[in-house]
Amino acid sequence: MQALMMNSQLMISSILRHADKNFPDSEIVSVTADNPRHRHTYKDFANRSRQLANALAELGAKFGDRIGTLAWNDYRHLELYYGVSGSGMVCHTINPKLFPEQVNYIINHAEDRFIFVDLLVVPLLEALQDHLPKVEGYIILTDEAHMPKTTLPNVFCYETLLSKQSTSFDWPEFDENTASAMCYTSGTTGNPKGVVYSHRSTLLHALGGSMPDVVAASYKETTLPIVPMFHVNAWGAPYAALMAGSKMVMPGPKMADGESLQNLIETEKVTFSSGVPTIWLALLDYLDKTGKTIPTLTRASVGGAACPRIIIERFKHQHDVEVIQGWGMTETSPLGTIYCKKSGMEDLSEEEEIDLQCLQGRGVFGIEMRIVDDSNRELPWDGVAFGALKVRGPWVCSGYYGLSQVPGSEGCPVDELGWFDTGDVATINPQGYLQITDRTKDVIKTGGEWVSSIEIENAAVNHPDVAEAAAIGRYHPKWTERPLLVVVRQAGASLTTDELLKYLSNTLHKISMPDDVVFVDELPHTATGKLNKLALRKSLADYQFPIIA
Amino acid sequence: MQALMMNSQLMISSILRHADKNFPDSEIVSVTADNPRHRHTYKDFANRSRQLANALAELGAKFGDRIGTLAWNDYRHLELYYGVSGSGMVCHTINPKLFPEQVNYIINHAEDRFIFVDLLVVPLLEALQDHLPKVEGYIILTDEAHMPKTTLPNVFCYETLLSKQSTSFDWPEFDENTASAMCYTSGTTGNPKGVVYSHRSTLLHALGGSMPDVVAASYKETTLPIVPMFHVNAWGAPYAALMAGSKMVMPGPKMADGESLQNLIETEKVTFSSGVPTIWLALLDYLDKTGKTIPTLTRASVGGAACPRIIIERFKHQHDVEVIQGWGMTETSPLGTIYCKKSGMEDLSEEEEIDLQCLQGRGVFGIEMRIVDDSNRELPWDGVAFGALKVRGPWVCSGYYGLSQVPGSEGCPVDELGWFDTGDVATINPQGYLQITDRTKDVIKTGGEWVSSIEIENAAVNHPDVAEAAAIGRYHPKWTERPLLVVVRQAGASLTTDELLKYLSNTLHKISMPDDVVFVDELPHTATGKLNKLALRKSLADYQFPIIA
Ligand SMILES: Nc1ncnc2c1ncn2[C@@H]1O[C@H](COP(=O)(O)O)[C@@H](O)[C@H]1O
Repeated sequence: MQALMMNSQLMISSILRHADKNFPDSEIVSVTADNPRHRHTYKDFANRSRQLANALAELGAKFGDRIGTLAWNDYRHLELYYGVSGSGMVCHTINPKLFPEQVNYIINHAEDRFIFVDLLVVPLLEALQDHLPKVEGYIILTDEAHMPKTTLPNVFCYETLLSKQSTSFDWPEFDENTASAMCYTSGTTGNPKGVVYSHRSTLLHALGGSMPDVVAASYKETTLPIVPMFHVNAWGAPYAALMAGSKMVMPGPKMADGESLQNLIETEKVTFSSGVPTIWLALLDYLDKTGKTIPTLTRASVGGAACPRIIIERFKHQHDVEVIQGWGMTETSPLGTIYCKKSGMEDLSEEEEIDLQCLQGRGVFGIEMRIVDDSNRELPWDGVAFGALKVRGPWVCSGYYGLSQVPGSEGCPVDELGWFDTGDVATINPQGYLQITDRTKDVIKTGGEWVSSIEIENAAVNHPDVAEAAAIGRYHPKWTERPLLVVVRQAGASLTTDELLKYLSNTLHKISMPDDVVFVDELPHTATGKLNKLALRKSLADYQFPIIA
Repeated sequence: MQALMMNSQLMISSILRHADKNFPDSEIVSVTADNPRHRHTYKDFANRSRQLANALAELGAKFGDRIGTLAWNDYRHLELYYGVSGSGMVCHTINPKLFPEQVNYIINHAEDRFIFVDLLVVPLLEALQDHLPKVEGYIILTDEAHMPKTTLPNVFCYETLLSKQSTSFDWPEFDENTASAMCYTSGTTGNPKGVVYSHRSTLLHALGGSMPDVVAASYKETTLPIVPMFHVNAWGAPYAALMAGSKMVMPGPKMADGESLQNLIETEKVTFSSGVPTIWLALLDYLDKTGKTIPTLTRASVGGAACPRIIIERFKHQHDVEVIQGWGMTETSPLGTIYCKKSGMEDLSEEEEIDLQCLQGRGVFGIEMRIVDDSNRELPWDGVAFGALKVRGPWVCSGYYGLSQVPGSEGCPVDELGWFDTGDVATINPQGYLQITDRTKDVIKTGGEWVSSIEIENAAVNHPDVAEAAAIGRYHPKWTERPLLVVVRQAGASLTTDELLKYLSNTLHKISMPDDVVFVDELPHTATGKLNKLALRKSLADYQFPIIA
């Protein structure tokens, strides 16, 4: 039997309409290349987003067109989020820090018709322009006074374009499963792959992510998304903040700069902020060095990589900030799990609480998760069994742009049972807290058992003489694979293999103990700064363990 | 362009699965006719809901069948919410306090195949059974030991039925627009009308309603829904609580009893509770009388009727409880607007804050609202203009069961533009706060202007000698209609018309001043306790104003 409820579609434009009507005076503060501290209100913002929608129509952009952005976190990028998606076009955010050939591949693969580009990123596009035959125009995100001299063809000035437009625009309503945004994810192998979000997935993610025990978006918060808007939509902050009426502070290009961040937090009274671990380290170090403080900040959400315990401890002890670690990925919009206590945990000691914050969090409504063994059989939530992490839910991707959508087939990340394979390996403890132990392709399979490469690396970097460490599996005639540890020493240190192995034997199980250590001057990394184990395995392809038992 | 996200349907069963996996130890405490304090956990609850699903299948109930409930707020009723809707059947909650002929009409109109009935309500059904030819069986919500002797045919004992079933059941996934629940709303005219909720509307309502600035559902809360589960699904608490993992306390038949409520709040450490104004008055009076306290309660949500200022003040000053007034109706699931401050309101005085709490709240994401004049033209949000309140959104009904679904046509409450006509008349102030000033059909139209009957009534009941008051429009040759005030005096009081009019002239505008006052011994009410103005108008049909100008 069909229900008799309105068939209102979940539209990104409805967030804007809600924000405009209910919170016209809420503020958006931005750092941009052309203005160190731009301020306007939701009302201004809504007017400008409608002007943008009119401008897009005038440019000739059509429903379904991909519109590329190469931009930082600021109000103009936010206007693109609403103006482009609200018009039924696809806001395709591109990471300006990728290798140029990746940017090139991504723009062509998505067939972007127009590209909105930050002043600072114009040179990148100038270098690529000959390879971008399908791009019909470039819009530079600045005003007339700051327009650069450029070799780009069909160039427009963003502010000039907007200023000619009416602030009236009727946002169209259409199927909520229509593509709203696109974000490419680049692994260590193959070409970047495009994840395509819908209006529906975006709204459900914003609702689920705003809940009190998740991110707790509220009018009371002033939120500073440091995680870039080209990185999984700044974890959804641009949507959740406008839903709740929060004041937004956008750091522009100053994302990894402790001084700018401290200054923004202090002067704009930021209460909540989100970013990857390295950002937080930069900020904490800056605060240490200068003795400056961040008294208004109460919560910092951390994701994108495991959060080192030391970040949690420093935030708590030095700045009274609660770290909220979450796990997610481009393919999950990104919210997967997030730290939050549960009832019965009122009396945790400070140490126990930090232990809990070091895990990747617990399930949120909307995402179902399971860990499975090699035969796709579900493993128990006992904190010990570890297996491939699979998830499903309305904000999880069903496939990549241009690749197979058939569950279980080549190129499709969803298995026959409808679960998305995250590529992560994890345990889940009896309380439901997730711990990522490895990437599926990095796990070391030895004598039928799985050994976590990350566990070995964490143990190794605890040694004061170790600057960086990577553990990979190498061929072993008896055990198929055994762990090999590759280490960069701290400058000036003279650590030996025996010393390090002795040290590791204090914390690692026998099965996880590396069979050998190789010292190197540096380890290979990907464009986004992650350890490139594929390259490492290649460079050590000829390696053989010294003593074959 | 279609997005590439999972097409996971929003299913009520997914809340149960989430609750079971993530919060197995969260508690549900219930008062029932057969147990003064029943306790179990989400895990037990999930098992029993699956047993219920198996039992329904064994009874022969099918996808789409309407399953009636006549029950109070307790764990068994909650199991019906999940077991019935989760199976793809329609959980049709019926108010046992309606007039028997209304219950009769409702059961037959919905064509309920089975009815689950509380011990205390069995006599009602016994009296009606001959008029219920389509009901195939009655399941009494108790255990074997408490089974009553009954004349009902095809009777089952709920606990016996469940005990035979497996705790395994695979919840089916189906179209999220499928009917999940049904609730009849009885106005003062005509037959009750059935609102049919969907899985989608229910989940979106639960998400939207759980937000930090709405009801803020959290694992930290212990929630006591006093508003009945047959009254718009207890305002959604059964869904929001399980999503968040809150401890639930269910008062069973003891809904309007101050002593029981105080005892539950104190012993179970309730932090949040929801109910209509009369419930709160009963509790506050009991606390006054006994000197008992409710120290754990921090927030009380109030809706269903305007919340008298005195409730807000007493809660705040005597018990440090924040009153959260909301407006909504059966047709809006019910969340429409709710009290919450906005940024910029940090420095409100206590009086100003109470003024704000006396309004019906501000917009929530998911509901769009507008007020319109007689020609359906939108009126400004200036706090002065008042007009018919219309709303739209994914948890607003599109029509009534068995009546027209065509917008704008007879019987359909949705206008040609897609807006649901609430039947309420309201102002919206520049900050976006709603104030209900009347029901459309009660508003008094005098000389082309609208006068709020509620404004007159509120002014009148402020007089210490007035127990209850109703204002209605009566024919006037010059002004078409003028207000007539009908008053019940406090016992022993001897208030006169002149005294009361003089008193009113201090607060009411000239246009709102009643032309006359009629004193009566009592005023007519509907089954749900609302003032029955239709009956009042009928009984005063022959009334004429004494001095016709
Ligand atoms: N906070 C409130 N203040 C004034 N009237 C209210 C409030 N909440 C609900 N109502 C009235 O109750 C009606 C809904 O009744 P029901 O469908 O029985 O819940 C609304 O249309 C309003 O007339």
